[in-house]
Amino acid sequence: MKITDIREIAVPVNSNLRNAVFDFSQMTTSIVAVITDVVRDGAPVVGYAFNSTGRYACGAQMRNRLIPRIAKAEPDSLLNEAGDNIDPEKALAVMLQGEKPGGHTERSIAVGTIEVAIWDAVAKIAEQPLYRTIADRYSSGEASQRMFVYVGGGWYQPGKGIPELLAEMRGYQEMGYTQLKMKVGGAPLAEDLARLEAVLDLVGDGQLLAVDANCGFDNETALEYGRALAPYNLRWYEEPADPLDFALIARLADFYEPPLATGENLFSTQDVQNLVRYSGMRPDRDVIQIDPPQSYGVTMMSRTLAMLAEHGWSPKSVMPHGGNQMSLHIAAGFGLGLCESYPNTFGMFSGFADDAEIIDGYITLDDRPGIGFEGQADLYKIMSELSAG
Amino acid sequence: MKITDIREIAVPVNSNLRNAVFDFSQMTTSIVAVITDVVRDGAPVVGYAFNSTGRYACGAQMRNRLIPRIAKAEPDSLLNEAGDNIDPEKALAVMLQGEKPGGHTERSIAVGTIEVAIWDAVAKIAEQPLYRTIADRYSSGEASQRMFVYVGGGWYQPGKGIPELLAEMRGYQEMGYTQLKMKVGGAPLAEDLARLEAVLDLVGDGQLLAVDANCGFDNETALEYGRALAPYNLRWYEEPADPLDFALIARLADFYEPPLATGENLFSTQDVQNLVRYSGMRPDRDVIQIDPPQSYGVTMMSRTLAMLAEHGWSPKSVMPHGGNQMSLHIAAGFGLGLCESYPNTFGMFSGFADDAEIIDGYITLDDRPGIGFEGQADLYKIMSELSAG
Repeated sequence: MKITDIREIAVPVNSNLRNAVFDFSQMTTSIVAVITDVVRDGAPVVGYAFNSTGRYACGAQMRNRLIPRIAKAEPDSLLNEAGDNIDPEKALAVMLQGEKPGGHTERSIAVGTIEVAIWDAVAKIAEQPLYRTIADRYSSGEASQRMFVYVGGGWYQPGKGIPELLAEMRGYQEMGYTQLKMKVGGAPLAEDLARLEAVLDLVGDGQLLAVDANCGFDNETALEYGRALAPYNLRWYEEPADPLDFALIARLADFYEPPLATGENLFSTQDVQNLVRYSGMRPDRDVIQIDPPQSYGVTMMSRTLAMLAEHGWSPKSVMPHGGNQMSLHIAAGFGLGLCESYPNTFGMFSGFADDAEIIDGYITLDDRPGIGFEGQADLYKIMSELSAG
Repeated sequence: MKITDIREIAVPVNSNLRNAVFDFSQMTTSIVAVITDVVRDGAPVVGYAFNSTGRYACGAQMRNRLIPRIAKAEPDSLLNEAGDNIDPEKALAVMLQGEKPGGHTERSIAVGTIEVAIWDAVAKIAEQPLYRTIADRYSSGEASQRMFVYVGGGWYQPGKGIPELLAEMRGYQEMGYTQLKMKVGGAPLAEDLARLEAVLDLVGDGQLLAVDANCGFDNETALEYGRALAPYNLRWYEEPADPLDFALIARLADFYEPPLATGENLFSTQDVQNLVRYSGMRPDRDVIQIDPPQSYGVTMMSRTLAMLAEHGWSPKSVMPHGGNQMSLHIAAGFGLGLCESYPNTFGMFSGFADDAEIIDGYITLDDRPGIGFEGQADLYKIMSELSAG
C-alpha cells in the first residue's frame, strides 16, 4: 500500500467580492490529488483537497519540497501500525523534515492541503466519511452527523445598498440558514450601523447575526466599533484589526461583553496558544476560528484542540474557517461548535455537496467515503481531471 | 526613470553543516535582479539581493504576484517626490496589494528580497553605499562606516570533536574576529558544556562567546540549559526553543541574568512587538535579531525599529540575522549594535566583500555604490549573469 503520486494545480477562485481590506479578483488556490495504489470500486483511491480561500496557491512549495520528501520516504514508513492504511501523522512528519522552526505560513498551507488530501484517501480506504475517521482517531468515535452551519455574507459590492443587502440575506434564509454574518468596515460607522440594523430587523435577534471586519480597522476604529456594536448583543464581532495584535483584543475584551471571534489568520498551534495566552479571550463565550488546510491540516488541528483544552477551551468554542466540505467534515469529526458556509461566493470552492440541504440552520453530512468532493460536480470535474491526466 | 524588469533565480546554498534542528543540504535561496533604465558608468543600474539563509527560495510568489504588481504600476507612482529616484516604500506598498492581513512568511521573504534589491538600485542611482542612503533617510544621516562583527560558528559535523571545534574557532580569531558564537543542543548537556569550556578557554571571557540553540530544545531542556549556562556569563543565549513561545522566554528571563537573544524567526513588526510585549526581554541587555530581507525589507526594518523605540528598545540592542553584505549595510545604516558573519559557511552567500578586512572585530565598509555585491566575485558572477541573460 503506497502513495504513487501527488499532483497539484493552481486554479483562480474567480470572485468579484470584496471585504474591508481587499478584493478576491486575483485570488488562486491549489487543488491537490494524492493518488494511491489501493483499489476501491475498481479504481485507485485518490484523496483530494484545496487550500481553502484567502491565501494564494502554493504549488511551488509542494513541488520543490513536500512532494519529493513523501516520494523519497520508504512507503511502509508512512503506514499505520496495522499496516492497513496510510497514517497522515507520519506523512506530516516527513513533510516537515528540513524545515526551520517558526515562519509557519510559508509552508503551512501547502503542507496542510496535502495532509487533508491524504486524510481524504485514508477515509476512502477505510470506506468511511472523513468525519467518522477523524472522530474514531481523536474523539473516541463520538461524532454527530448533523452540524450547525451559518452563512458568511453581507459583502460590499459597487452599487450595493441596503435593499440589495437585504435581498442577499433573505436569500440565505430561504436556503434554510438561520444565523448570518455580514461584513463591516467597508463603509463609515454610521452607514455600517444602518446596514446592521436593517439586517437585524430581518433576522430578529442579535444572536442570529455576526459581524466581520476582516482585520480592516486601525486600533482606535476597532475600539470605536466595539463601543457602537456592544448594545446589539451580536453573535460575535470578528477580526477587528491586525490578527496578531493580541493586546488590542484584550482591550476590547475589557468592555465588549458579547462574543469576540478571531483566528483564521493564525496558522500554527503556537500562534493560537499566544492568542489564548495574551488576548484575554473568554472561553465561556468567544469563538476561535482556524483554517485546517491552511494550518498544517487535520493532525495539527488535533494538537491545537489539545492545547486549547489545557487552557480551558472546549471544541464547542472552535469553528473551522472556510465554508466547504473539508471544514464541514473537520467540524463534525472533532465535535466543533459550528461550521461556516459561503454559498455562491467562491464559486465551486464554496458550499457543500450538490444534494446537501440546510434545514433550520443544520446540515446532515452524507455517507460518501472521504471528504465527499464527489458530490460537488463542478469541483470534482477538475479534481478528477487532475488525477486522471 | 523606471524599473524595466525584475528577474529571479533559485540557487542551492550548498552547505553540509547542521545545527540543533536540521541540516542545510537541501537549502536554496532566491537571487533577484531589479533592472532599471537609469544609466551609470555606461550601463543600466541593476539592484541585487538574495533571500538570506535558512528559508527556501521563493521565486513563485515573486513571479505570480509581486513582479506583476510592480510591472503594472504606473512608473512615476514608484518615484520619490523629487522624481529623481525610485522610492522603495512605494514599491513595498504596491507589492502588498491584494495580500490578506497576517500570514506573513508566505510572502515576507519574497517581498523583502525584492525590496532590498530595489534599495541596492536606489543607492546606486544616488551613487552612495547603501548604508549611507539608509542613514540619510532613517537616521538623520548619522552612520558609522565601522561596524562590529562577530562570527556565528561552532557547528556540529560528523566526526568533529573538541580539537576540531577549537581549530575552527581559532581560525575565526586568526581572521580578526574577537567575539564568537557556537551551537549548543546538538549534543547532550555535559558534552556541550565541555565544548563550551574549551572554547571559553580560547576566547578568555564569557562576554566574547555567545551560544545558539536554534530553537532545538523543548521547554524543560531550554530551562535546564539556562540554569547550566548562567554562571558562564556568556554574551548571549540564543533561541532556546520555539521562536513564538514568548512565555518560555519570560520564564528564562526570570532567572537567567546574562543576555538572551532571539528574533530571526519572526518576520513582521507585529510579531516582534509581541516578543517585546510578552517575553519579558530586557532592553538593558537582551538582543533582538531580525532578518530584513526575510521580513519585508529595509522599509519594514525602519518601522520595526520605530515600534521598538516606543517600547524602550535602542537600535543598539538590535542586530540583523544573516552574515552578508546586505545585513552589514543595514546594520551600519540604522546604527544597530553589531552584525554577524558566517565566513565560509554558506559558500558565496556568506561573508563580505572579497577585499574586506576584519581588524580587532571591526569591519570598515567600503565605498562601492549600493550593497556592494560587485566586491564579491563568485556571487556577483551569478547576479550579473541573471541580469545580463
